Amino acid sequence: MRVGIIGGSGYVGGELLRLLLFHPHVEVTMVTSRKYAGEFVFGVHPNLRGATRLKFLPLNLSDIAKNCDLVFTAMPHGSSVNLVPKLLEIGLRVIDMSADFRLKNPDDYVKWYGWKHVHPELLKEAVYGSTELHRQEMKNARLIACPGCMAVATILGLAPIVKAGVIEKDRIVADAKIGSSGAGSAPTIGSHHPERFGGVRPYKSVGHRHTAEIEQELNLLTNEPVTVSFSAHAVNMVRGILSTIHVFLTKSLTDKDVWKIYRSFYQGEPFVRLVRYKKGLYRLPDPKVVMGTNFCDVGFEFDPHTNRLVILSAIDNILKGASGQGIQCLNVVLGIDEKTALESMGFHPM
Amino acid sequence: MRVGIIGGSGYVGGELLRLLLFHPHVEVTMVTSRKYAGEFVFGVHPNLRGATRLKFLPLNLSDIAKNCDLVFTAMPHGSSVNLVPKLLEIGLRVIDMSADFRLKNPDDYVKWYGWKHVHPELLKEAVYGSTELHRQEMKNARLIACPGCMAVATILGLAPIVKAGVIEKDRIVADAKIGSSGAGSAPTIGSHHPERFGGVRPYKSVGHRHTAEIEQELNLLTNEPVTVSFSAHAVNMVRGILSTIHVFLTKSLTDKDVWKIYRSFYQGEPFVRLVRYKKGLYRLPDPKVVMGTNFCDVGFEFDPHTNRLVILSAIDNILKGASGQGIQCLNVVLGIDEKTALESMGFHPM
Amino acid sequence: MRVGIIGGSGYVGGELLRLLLFHPHVEVTMVTSRKYAGEFVFGVHPNLRGATRLKFLPLNLSDIAKNCDLVFTAMPHGSSVNLVPKLLEIGLRVIDMSADFRLKNPDDYVKWYGWKHVHPELLKEAVYGSTELHRQEMKNARLIACPGCMAVATILGLAPIVKAGVIEKDRIVADAKIGSSGAGSAPTIGSHHPERFGGVRPYKSVGHRHTAEIEQELNLLTNEPVTVSFSAHAVNMVRGILSTIHVFLTKSLTDKDVWKIYRSFYQGEPFVRLVRYKKGLYRLPDPKVVMGTNFCDVGFEFDPHTNRLVILSAIDNILKGASGQGIQCLNVVLGIDEKTALESMGFHPM
Amino acid sequence: MRVGIIGGSGYVGGELLRLLLFHPHVEVTMVTSRKYAGEFVFGVHPNLRGATRLKFLPLNLSDIAKNCDLVFTAMPHGSSVNLVPKLLEIGLRVIDMSADFRLKNPDDYVKWYGWKHVHPELLKEAVYGSTELHRQEMKNARLIACPGCMAVATILGLAPIVKAGVIEKDRIVADAKIGSSGAGSAPTIGSHHPERFGGVRPYKSVGHRHTAEIEQELNLLTNEPVTVSFSAHAVNMVRGILSTIHVFLTKSLTDKDVWKIYRSFYQGEPFVRLVRYKKGLYRLPDPKVVMGTNFCDVGFEFDPHTNRLVILSAIDNILKGASGQGIQCLNVVLGIDEKTALESMGFHPM
Repeated sequence: MRVGIIGGSGYVGGELLRLLLFHPHVEVTMVTSRKYAGEFVFGVHPNLRGATRLKFLPLNLSDIAKNCDLVFTAMPHGSSVNLVPKLLEIGLRVIDMSADFRLKNPDDYVKWYGWKHVHPELLKEAVYGSTELHRQEMKNARLIACPGCMAVATILGLAPIVKAGVIEKDRIVADAKIGSSGAGSAPTIGSHHPERFGGVRPYKSVGHRHTAEIEQELNLLTNEPVTVSFSAHAVNMVRGILSTIHVFLTKSLTDKDVWKIYRSFYQGEPFVRLVRYKKGLYRLPDPKVVMGTNFCDVGFEFDPHTNRLVILSAIDNILKGASGQGIQCLNVVLGIDEKTALESMGFHPM
Repeated sequence: MRVGIIGGSGYVGGELLRLLLFHPHVEVTMVTSRKYAGEFVFGVHPNLRGATRLKFLPLNLSDIAKNCDLVFTAMPHGSSVNLVPKLLEIGLRVIDMSADFRLKNPDDYVKWYGWKHVHPELLKEAVYGSTELHRQEMKNARLIACPGCMAVATILGLAPIVKAGVIEKDRIVADAKIGSSGAGSAPTIGSHHPERFGGVRPYKSVGHRHTAEIEQELNLLTNEPVTVSFSAHAVNMVRGILSTIHVFLTKSLTDKDVWKIYRSFYQGEPFVRLVRYKKGLYRLPDPKVVMGTNFCDVGFEFDPHTNRLVILSAIDNILKGASGQGIQCLNVVLGIDEKTALESMGFHPM
Repeated sequence: MRVGIIGGSGYVGGELLRLLLFHPHVEVTMVTSRKYAGEFVFGVHPNLRGATRLKFLPLNLSDIAKNCDLVFTAMPHGSSVNLVPKLLEIGLRVIDMSADFRLKNPDDYVKWYGWKHVHPELLKEAVYGSTELHRQEMKNARLIACPGCMAVATILGLAPIVKAGVIEKDRIVADAKIGSSGAGSAPTIGSHHPERFGGVRPYKSVGHRHTAEIEQELNLLTNEPVTVSFSAHAVNMVRGILSTIHVFLTKSLTDKDVWKIYRSFYQGEPFVRLVRYKKGLYRLPDPKVVMGTNFCDVGFEFDPHTNRLVILSAIDNILKGASGQGIQCLNVVLGIDEKTALESMGFHPM
Repeated sequence: MRVGIIGGSGYVGGELLRLLLFHPHVEVTMVTSRKYAGEFVFGVHPNLRGATRLKFLPLNLSDIAKNCDLVFTAMPHGSSVNLVPKLLEIGLRVIDMSADFRLKNPDDYVKWYGWKHVHPELLKEAVYGSTELHRQEMKNARLIACPGCMAVATILGLAPIVKAGVIEKDRIVADAKIGSSGAGSAPTIGSHHPERFGGVRPYKSVGHRHTAEIEQELNLLTNEPVTVSFSAHAVNMVRGILSTIHVFLTKSLTDKDVWKIYRSFYQGEPFVRLVRYKKGLYRLPDPKVVMGTNFCDVGFEFDPHTNRLVILSAIDNILKGASGQGIQCLNVVLGIDEKTALESMGFHPM
């Protein structure tokens, strides 16, 4: 399949490119970047030195139409909404990495993003790109909207227990910790090394936009309304998210009961690992262990003191939280092994 | 006042020593260490090079009796319980940095620490060394039990709002992030740089011992029972704690109402800063800003989406979380300005 | 080929295992560990969860003889010297990761390591496992001695210019910076996170043992004696080495001349990349870019002010500096593409 | 004394402000910032919350003339050159933190900075603000030009041995490692956390401007010309510099001889500590130990293998490398104890 990447100079675009270059069923026919048009991609993504002589191209719809069967759009939020309809129109399939097509309810864009969606007709068609939840729908989708990084970590941590109907659905606290790459490749004071190194910054304690998609996806799994109290913290690492999710049980459950709920939900999933060991340093999920992989490690501990279940969910924010998830969607679309091009097991230690 | 430090080779002992060496009302007469007896203290605490020629001494009660009026005991949990009674008996005042005298109810030692307290008679007498909560009692105390580091951060974040009686007291979630110095100076696999660097490890998701003292202190402020759902995470920094506390309001409060609750509670407190700015990178508490200081920065944000209040509380775990808090207690005992020897404002950036 | 790993619980053993598990021409038949015998390998190497159900075995020569054609020995320096001869005797091929067979001159073990070599007869036979320098010899070797991590970075940086005979051979300064994984998986005070984080420790300013093998290999390339002034620093990262090599030119050379010297030396080498761009953040080698790969990035800058050439050489200390180099040697032995199982391009950013 | 800070919003200005606010002989009468005029200084320097209600002012010469006796100018290189002459003209004393008045030879500005100095007449008058080398001259100086951070670390490491005349003066290699704060407070791609974290970037291998002042100062100590081969590396820390200096001895010296050379040179210096212990983790200088202090720790090791002396020199780049050094100069000007306001011993661990 001939695949293009629109917006290939950022961190998500760079990882898409790396994964696609080694994908046996894909030919990367073009990578666009307004800023770097004409330059070698390895100038921006130094890890690709020696792997490719591709250069960034400017964005040109007719070139894309000619050379691609499917495109990944990795543009800033708010830019995809205008481009994607045009790409669909010229017959391309699109896997969009932005937030622009994730939400089903157009009103949610006004509420959470502050702008009115100009293509609400596509929201219904777009498939939310969490393979674990929407595998069937994405097989023939024209448009897949890849989940937000903190959203996917939190959703995968919560989905089984929400579906099981055994927790208080309005007292869910998700406390996320994320690395600096999550803020993108453009320098800002918040990501300035002297300011970011060695601290824990509560950068979005309330009102985080990913709350919208988390609740949307969880509400599909249950009849009672689910609300999530989400907070995000910037910590001193580059890649990775840990979402620590605190929920209160409404039923008396043993550890084994909870384990069964998770195991049966994720049975056969190639990229969700249940991590809950009796001993060892990494007996629960830690983003350090999934860096460089497409895994989502999910574990939990029960706190009898307050009848609380603590669920831990760890991902690499650029892989399972973006580019890796996108490739997994592509593999579903292609009808091939979902692990294709996503075999990396990570490194220990890193 | 002649002051001794028992157990001076660890991180808490080292910072006690540094602060006491520059304390205008104190003469450090002895510092003990079994392991390093006979060696210069600056060999273990390299920052003290040039500041002192003191050497570590072995522990000898009659020497202590002769040379000290007050001692800080900075020994491992479970060791102080045997030594402190002897020190009191020979007429010394004691500020104990361990957990051994923090809890009022002897049963709590069985429940949370797994051992039976052999000097329960002292638990009633010991003053819990949070100056903000027990200033009056500590003035003439023989024995002050300094709070646990994550406990003090969490207690100071919660005390005003718990006392105000406006939150659900059984749905309090405290999600703490702590630096590696919190685990002490002895190398372990958990603090091994290759394993600790760049991750977020849920090292005590449930059952953390500090829960006991947090609940004890909060219950003193209110009539309804308070339970706390506490979880701790090891992050990639050396010093600092951020406790992110999620509570649900039972009353409709404006931001200003909450602000008043906190401001009136901490009015005049020299080491609690209310941090809640409209803009700037550090508009909410971040441990990076309090490193090297005795401050506890407390801030909050209200989440109308779930009627949640997110409270952020940041300290330097070795200072406000241990040695600095100990010196503050000493200053109260001495009847002098609490800020004495604790003037450091920290550094930006660090 | 049936391959075993002796000493599989350390960082080098873990990465050997990861690479071999995905090697298309290899079956990993056994992994030994005294300490972890009976336990799953993924308990020690958490990145391997889901990749293998292998367990560590105790070391048993007859089992090894039965099940392996070739073994990697990843044991502490000084342990291989006794085991390797036995492995050779029972007909195995050995790729040894320790220093025990790297040096040709038995006296060098006395001088640099402080012990007398008990199998000097094997030193001549052993092939120094730098593929770039000894590819032909290793094809049929029974015993390959993999280079030291800082040695290989420094040797690859220096080899072309030393061979070209254009520098002062007794004024070579190599100033190396290395991550914490280089010190191994056992916790020590030097690798204790609070002590290692955020500093630059000159841990071996003089007398580093890798000097011996660096000089040995460089002396093979030239007739005049080469001496190297080597110093190592521990910096705040987990993986990676940058060796900054300062040499003084004896001839007047243009940048282009130097470039030709390097390009012709490394022409066709799959894992040496010449990195010297006009612009960009990573225009010279940086270990950050080679993390997770088997590349050695080599670059240089000329300083007309003192007629100095600064050569930069960057590797991942566990891959090109150990396990990756070992797999590259294996591929030569197998007569297959050297890149087999070593395709990872790394990640940006990481 | 009434002191002003011109350019108070950067890292150097912020640390000047912190130190001056607690300086017993100083009243900070104004702090200017074009960008932040009208805002509280603690908004930019969060560590100063609670310490001052000062606001940034715009730059206004007549206000400065009215309110200040001495000013610190902490502006970008190339800006001081125009402002300082005006400040001197209105009768102020100036301690300039930029490079604009450090070099004696106007031609050096053309050579190293690429611009022609418009006030060469002031270069002769300006005192290079290394207290250890120019204490007498600065007592009555109108204009003190504070040294560059990497320059001061390297100069203090080399001065004694250069003066002693026992090394090859054209084969001096200084390999410096510096934290991210050295690049200033403005976000750039080079200091973007995802790009800076966890690497070692050779950011100025040749041609670093500090070479000019290093050589200038060393040449004052000896008759033979000294040239320095300087290279700088960006490492993963915020504060601190380690300059590793490799020199070759021309005479046969014992360790004790070298020790005497250094001890006699720095006898009585309050901020140079000779660090060379037989054991311990920090037996040689490490920037980690001097963070938050005005110390320069200097140590060395002799390498008989190549007759090389390795000199290690560590400072906090913002303190001894800038603001702390500036305050030390001020104390000389004031004729008071040089340690005034510079008592901080740092923290262990940090």
